[in-house]
Amino acid sequence: MIIALLTDFGTSDYFVAAMKGTILSVNPQAKIVDLTHDIPPQNLQSASFTLQACYIDFPPQTIFVAVVDPEVGSSRRAILVETDKYFFLAPDNGLLNFIFDAFETEKVFRVFEITETKYFNQNISRTFHGRDLFAPVAAHLSKNIEANKFGREITNFVHLSTKKPRKISPNQTEAEIIHADNFGNLITNLTKNDLPEQFVTEINKSLIEKHLEFFAQAVEGELFTILGSAGFLEIAAYKDSAQKILNVEVGERVLVRKAK
Amino acid sequence: MIIALLTDFGTSDYFVAAMKGTILSVNPQAKIVDLTHDIPPQNLQSASFTLQACYIDFPPQTIFVAVVDPEVGSSRRAILVETDKYFFLAPDNGLLNFIFDAFETEKVFRVFEITETKYFNQNISRTFHGRDLFAPVAAHLSKNIEANKFGREITNFVHLSTKKPRKISPNQTEAEIIHADNFGNLITNLTKNDLPEQFVTEINKSLIEKHLEFFAQAVEGELFTILGSAGFLEIAAYKDSAQKILNVEVGERVLVRKAK
Amino acid sequence: MIIALLTDFGTSDYFVAAMKGTILSVNPQAKIVDLTHDIPPQNLQSASFTLQACYIDFPPQTIFVAVVDPEVGSSRRAILVETDKYFFLAPDNGLLNFIFDAFETEKVFRVFEITETKYFNQNISRTFHGRDLFAPVAAHLSKNIEANKFGREITNFVHLSTKKPRKISPNQTEAEIIHADNFGNLITNLTKNDLPEQFVTEINKSLIEKHLEFFAQAVEGELFTILGSAGFLEIAAYKDSAQKILNVEVGERVLVRKAK
Repeated sequence: MIIALLTDFGTSDYFVAAMKGTILSVNPQAKIVDLTHDIPPQNLQSASFTLQACYIDFPPQTIFVAVVDPEVGSSRRAILVETDKYFFLAPDNGLLNFIFDAFETEKVFRVFEITETKYFNQNISRTFHGRDLFAPVAAHLSKNIEANKFGREITNFVHLSTKKPRKISPNQTEAEIIHADNFGNLITNLTKNDLPEQFVTEINKSLIEKHLEFFAQAVEGELFTILGSAGFLEIAAYKDSAQKILNVEVGERVLVRKAK
Repeated sequence: MIIALLTDFGTSDYFVAAMKGTILSVNPQAKIVDLTHDIPPQNLQSASFTLQACYIDFPPQTIFVAVVDPEVGSSRRAILVETDKYFFLAPDNGLLNFIFDAFETEKVFRVFEITETKYFNQNISRTFHGRDLFAPVAAHLSKNIEANKFGREITNFVHLSTKKPRKISPNQTEAEIIHADNFGNLITNLTKNDLPEQFVTEINKSLIEKHLEFFAQAVEGELFTILGSAGFLEIAAYKDSAQKILNVEVGERVLVRKAK
Repeated sequence: MIIALLTDFGTSDYFVAAMKGTILSVNPQAKIVDLTHDIPPQNLQSASFTLQACYIDFPPQTIFVAVVDPEVGSSRRAILVETDKYFFLAPDNGLLNFIFDAFETEKVFRVFEITETKYFNQNISRTFHGRDLFAPVAAHLSKNIEANKFGREITNFVHLSTKKPRKISPNQTEAEIIHADNFGNLITNLTKNDLPEQFVTEINKSLIEKHLEFFAQAVEGELFTILGSAGFLEIAAYKDSAQKILNVEVGERVLVRKAK
């Protein structure tokens, strides 16, 4: 069974190694896949975006372990979410919002509070639940122990309201940048359904009029918008970094205006 | 079967994770190995050097997937190269030059244009062929589907001329820096056969007279040349960065002069 | 069998890929795990700390390959250490000190000099023993070849004295920073046994009076000490980098004073 890891631990320390060793000690057959460990420290929004953008590509029964956990050691709970297709383990801090949003109407998911200490490391630290709680629980889960064995089902899990684009006039929608990728492309929270057929995009006093289907249609260095591979509108620059050109950060306001 | 990945996607985004999830969805038995995902964005020469330097260490039947793809979404083709020992998947943009060079005299390779959409993801994006084309095709290939099932054989693939060292006088050879590694060692395109028995090396107005067999022969911080583990002449500094000392970039001119 | 890799090679070059290819060529069944490849270049102390902090989490029979090797190509030896539970391969340069320290009283380990060239790559370079010696030896070892087949047992291996905290007065202990992690937490060489019940910590003219059990007990940006997950006292700042706040490097002196 696949155990897929997403953390903000970086790859230069022993943290990820300790999680992998722990998983393999419990289940030597586990197939561990790194999603990424380079989530900006304690950035829940970035963790959420990244997991949301790729979990669907994995085979059924994959166990996702997402540890971005500023409140580790406090009374914040650890949760296990079972959907019709996957398992997700994470702190109960809103990281899995996108699951709760996506499945909300149909409620085809169950949330368990992870409390059964017999599945934890023997000496559980108060600073590293990635190694001492999430890793061993994921490994036991991968050995087909049922989700409800790890603790009772709960309904009062943390479900933060996701920031959605907002129509501020018949022709204008206000949105924001939720992620900047390795190439400097700026990902907005606008999906295809939020966009008029013809539109222009305003960000940090720049007006972007060109909307393209793929990168090589652009002139080098030119700004344009594009529907990206994660399903969101992105602001990009061909063979250049839109983030550097526009000098903006995650959270920046974006305005989409209907064009004639 | 091993599927080895090389990209310029970085490891902080969902891109590599999405490729891995897609591969494992098609073939849960695939053994995925990361070569590197830190190729400088859209740098074909660096991608080519890196793949060339390590593919030979892998067992027969390994499937290499190399995605550095500035023209993604345009009409550039995707190719599958079958040699007597390996498979290579890449955009048809010259990334696999070193294969075409190395095997040219004997022509023990075949190139197929990847066109059979039934092996692609159902909704293929125009911006992320790594996930939507290369990953699923590699996964199907790892399930022993024959190379010619993915598209017709072609002979007009892109084969750029590789930059070779050039003898500019009986005693002088002009070459260039093709890569700088993690330690600041500068890799030239000079192989053993290009070098006189005794020689000195000129780069950015510095003259390097010392040629060594291993690093610890040098004094700390001293510049020297050495035949590196990838088979090319390298300029190095013991426990220091030759790149920083010489203040040069990839592409810098190098002159090798016969010494008496 | 698991082969766990720790190097200072970085992940942007072909070095790690070449090691993995070599291992899989010898033993296609090997399960390779990356501990980290981002040890600062040639930093033995950091390599030692990182390996020490996570090896215990791995299952019995794991083969650890640690290559931080400033003297590669010289006459420094390569060693294989067999403990009651694990195997360790490394240059004979002190990297495995913590093993020799930990097991010293009981001597439940044996050290072999790796000399049997039939387990090396055919053409062994003098600059890349990670690929040409350590990788193939680890792979052969993972096929259950006995440790004493790789060379004779030795007792004169390099065992550097580990820097220990030092009591400089009845109420004061002098220690040092041995590692800074991805979050900017500063790890000292003080363990629980070195600490009085109540204490304050002095570093670079700052006095830290607060000692906490977990991170979220602190105010954002506030400095405090905490017993970290590797078993050492750490200096941390909640949602901030203690390293940046204190402006110190690895090696910085730390003073712990008994408080009333």
